[in-house]
Amino acid sequence: MLLLAVKVLNTENRNFLAKYGIEVVTPDTIKASQISEIVISYGWDNAIGEEILTNPSSKLKWIQAQSAGVDYLPLAQLKARDITVTNASGLKALPIAQTVLSYILYFARGLHMYATRTHWEPFTDQYLVSELPVLVFGTGRIGQQIAKLIKSFGGTVYGVNRTGHQVPNFDRVYAMTDYQEGLAKADIVVDGLPGTTETDDFFDERFFEQMNQLFLFINIGRGTTLNQSALLSAIDDSRVKYAALDVTTPEPLPKNHPLFERSQILLTQHTSWGENAQTGRAGGLFTFLEKNVPSFVTEGTFVQNVVDLDRGY
Amino acid sequence: MLLLAVKVLNTENRNFLAKYGIEVVTPDTIKASQISEIVISYGWDNAIGEEILTNPSSKLKWIQAQSAGVDYLPLAQLKARDITVTNASGLKALPIAQTVLSYILYFARGLHMYATRTHWEPFTDQYLVSELPVLVFGTGRIGQQIAKLIKSFGGTVYGVNRTGHQVPNFDRVYAMTDYQEGLAKADIVVDGLPGTTETDDFFDERFFEQMNQLFLFINIGRGTTLNQSALLSAIDDSRVKYAALDVTTPEPLPKNHPLFERSQILLTQHTSWGENAQTGRAGGLFTFLEKNVPSFVTEGTFVQNVVDLDRGY
Repeated sequence: MLLLAVKVLNTENRNFLAKYGIEVVTPDTIKASQISEIVISYGWDNAIGEEILTNPSSKLKWIQAQSAGVDYLPLAQLKARDITVTNASGLKALPIAQTVLSYILYFARGLHMYATRTHWEPFTDQYLVSELPVLVFGTGRIGQQIAKLIKSFGGTVYGVNRTGHQVPNFDRVYAMTDYQEGLAKADIVVDGLPGTTETDDFFDERFFEQMNQLFLFINIGRGTTLNQSALLSAIDDSRVKYAALDVTTPEPLPKNHPLFERSQILLTQHTSWGENAQTGRAGGLFTFLEKNVPSFVTEGTFVQNVVDLDRGY
Repeated sequence: MLLLAVKVLNTENRNFLAKYGIEVVTPDTIKASQISEIVISYGWDNAIGEEILTNPSSKLKWIQAQSAGVDYLPLAQLKARDITVTNASGLKALPIAQTVLSYILYFARGLHMYATRTHWEPFTDQYLVSELPVLVFGTGRIGQQIAKLIKSFGGTVYGVNRTGHQVPNFDRVYAMTDYQEGLAKADIVVDGLPGTTETDDFFDERFFEQMNQLFLFINIGRGTTLNQSALLSAIDDSRVKYAALDVTTPEPLPKNHPLFERSQILLTQHTSWGENAQTGRAGGLFTFLEKNVPSFVTEGTFVQNVVDLDRGY
């Protein structure tokens, strides 16, 4: 059984795979004749991916994505060909949650004023985390990690998910169809929604019309979930004071894009997942593959992190 | 008994004081004839303070400072006149600790690059809090609050105090005379020392010579504890990568001061204590006065927060 290692495997990883009769090729070493033989793609590379999917005799059965969101994969096509996608939901929850706290503290502790100030002019319009209740859309691994950090600062944090079922670390969770009570109590909104047809343009003009004076709007979900013009209008007429966006539409943003031109908006250019690769956690992706290998090899089944290709997450 | 309320008292506070026979005057309403009658100063105002201290028949016995550090008071003079100073150690521990975390996340999560970036150029040299061990000089209320937050991020935090006695929330505490082992393990140093003759210029050229490549130096103690030229040299030859200073010498810093001119240095202009006054915690100073009032009125003694006027804290 052939595995394409788009992401790096160490010796230990390779030994584990060998035990299950899995051979490894990499994008650098693969021969044209092997394209159709690939059964597992460990990580996804758009160029080779397309070669695989357009090959009529492809044996591809499983893609282990390197991310939590999988909206960049051709989900309908994969479904039609009966290819399973497993995601890496939770792999980047820790760095992303720390970036969300960095945004909150940046604006709450006045750093946005001091970052560019080159003369003495104290700025004291500051807040404790506990003075700014937070509403997080999306209560999966990333949302829960955000909530945990906010609680450790003594803060208040509400969540929103599809059904409104309660989730650890949140003071209360609301349903997507019924979030208004939570919104009325919040000074900070975190968009942590996956990119699906349901969430497309969810944060639109009507959403921002509900704002009186929101302190901070954060997007660490997907750029498609936010109507950026609606946000810009809300910023310009002070219904939203500040915004911090890790994801945008498009990426990269073109030069002179209006999002670059508002001093109230912080853009982190889709890098909220960053951590120091030298310290080991970067190898965490393999643990996602590893858990599913035994059942996949013996019976073609999966024990965790299978993506619903209709829902998209 | 007359109390000068430099800081605001609400009705409840005034009722409490009245029960103990304490009358209140404010800087706005005080008559010249009352200056010598003041027994308690609630908060300290330099101008009226000097009037009181130069009055030969002053009855001043107690100053409740509005801060943890009291180096701005004429301590030797107060000692000679047998005036007791109580501090507000802990009052601002929470906001100051949150500002320290804002500094750490600002540089660790790459915000210092994004704050001024107006084109698309992702910056991924990022760190988790757990990847940057911290050494905090000063393990009092502020230091402990900083340590608690770092632990909640899964981080490592060492402390330094006079004797090296262990303190809650720290992984290990070293003595001031023996901190080198802790320093060797740390990527971030927090100067949280009070301003005393012992700590004057503690972080000097010799201190910074020990650095190989420190990620971040933070000063939320007192400007006098840091030799700023030594820090600037360490920044300029990359022994220290970044610095975040809340306190400086002098304050305010003059225009064009070299600290303003280094992009690696963040200055927050002595406002790390900031919080939103509307939400109630600002009244916390009175709880410090309140605890000492009964014993002071009945026997002239104090139960907590008395400053050692020789040591200066």
